Amino acid sequence: MDKLTVIKIGGQVIDNDSELNAFLNLFKDLEGYKILVHGGGKKASAISEKLGISPKMVDGRRITDAETLEVVTMVYGGLVNKNIVAGLQALGVNAIGLSGADANLIPAQKRVHPTIDFGFVGDFEVGNINTQFLKSIISQGVTPVCCALTHDGHGSMLNTNADTLAAGLAQSSTKHYNTELIYCFEKSGVLIDVNNEDSVIQKLSFQHYESLKAEGKVADGMIPKLDNAFKTFQTGVAVTIKNALKLNEPLGTRLI
Amino acid sequence: MDKLTVIKIGGQVIDNDSELNAFLNLFKDLEGYKILVHGGGKKASAISEKLGISPKMVDGRRITDAETLEVVTMVYGGLVNKNIVAGLQALGVNAIGLSGADANLIPAQKRVHPTIDFGFVGDFEVGNINTQFLKSIISQGVTPVCCALTHDGHGSMLNTNADTLAAGLAQSSTKHYNTELIYCFEKSGVLIDVNNEDSVIQKLSFQHYESLKAEGKVADGMIPKLDNAFKTFQTGVAVTIKNALKLNEPLGTRLI
Repeated sequence: MDKLTVIKIGGQVIDNDSELNAFLNLFKDLEGYKILVHGGGKKASAISEKLGISPKMVDGRRITDAETLEVVTMVYGGLVNKNIVAGLQALGVNAIGLSGADANLIPAQKRVHPTIDFGFVGDFEVGNINTQFLKSIISQGVTPVCCALTHDGHGSMLNTNADTLAAGLAQSSTKHYNTELIYCFEKSGVLIDVNNEDSVIQKLSFQHYESLKAEGKVADGMIPKLDNAFKTFQTGVAVTIKNALKLNEPLGTRLI
Repeated sequence: MDKLTVIKIGGQVIDNDSELNAFLNLFKDLEGYKILVHGGGKKASAISEKLGISPKMVDGRRITDAETLEVVTMVYGGLVNKNIVAGLQALGVNAIGLSGADANLIPAQKRVHPTIDFGFVGDFEVGNINTQFLKSIISQGVTPVCCALTHDGHGSMLNTNADTLAAGLAQSSTKHYNTELIYCFEKSGVLIDVNNEDSVIQKLSFQHYESLKAEGKVADGMIPKLDNAFKTFQTGVAVTIKNALKLNEPLGTRLI
């Protein structure tokens, strides 16, 4: 089977034009088939604020109300996605921007939760991803750039976590490809000490992860990221978490 | 050759959710292969205004400065495009949203003008349109939904007139398809009397158009639209201008 790398780019790298460009250059150099997945960085919040839309939180969780959905659809699906696509085209990478609605790539359901109404947030089944379409365009030499949006099949876009979306794309791709998932961001990997970039855990097993969690040494955003990562690893996908600007160096945290 | 219809939807229909939905239902029922092209309606102006960006005009022509480019990239490429795609998916049409950067569909050049700097406005050569990619996705049963954005090949998106973009797509499609171009909007067609929807010119020749222009009976936005229309007609494309909500009725103005 051919090699496919699904790379999720997030965090501060997306918000900084020169870092984003440096990353896109590294992405260009990566061998084999590849899919880029991105969130929106802080741009969505900045534009929401300018439009007078305040972030909606319930129990510390972000809620996507109708006007926030409009902003993320604009920012993730329009501004960030098209700028990345145009940036890759300039580097000779024949990129195509996709949301989960495009070619029915990722049909999803509005999240149902017993106590919190998350609004327009989408959860999807990996089995429903349109891998056939992805394969057909990848085989034409076209590189998918996926934003973190899905759709409900009833006419509405849905906001979906970019880590989860990348994990789902990687898992579903194992049907057709020898797949690798790379989560990259501004940090060097999973750190023992969050303030020390030299404290990268080079190889992380699920047991080790569980004990770090119990000790409170991984927390916050890292937990859902690592949950997604291990779930994906268990389907036969190689998974690495690393610095976006060291994409092509054998660094970071590799799941074992 | 298979039949392909390129339909450009514009004007007030895009700004009104129920009219847009009615149009998408008619679009769904249209037989044969099809491409939908859309502008942004008044949403881009409304969002610009909320963001405190005032429209830039020089000699009555709209200028696309850097911040306006951000807004049209968000609104055309994100908000309007993804909502149309999700709306079509809900109707069972397997739509895919595309800008001219995606899959390098429409490479363009920033407009060069002797006296006016139009900013990030793109002009393209019909011969550079990536019809091969369009054909490959159309043949998979996927329906392209194109927004009025191109790219310069150096990393920047460009704002392009939606009528011109639709005309270009229709002209380039004659290589592979028996092509028809339909410009549709809120009016019934080309009117002798702009205030009388019953005064539609059913068949319009180039000579007739020239005489109407000389008499001042067509003016404003209709002139570039008809210039595009006749240029396209002359390449062997059937061209009709009609009411979006009567898409499937044999009405409107047909070029002869």
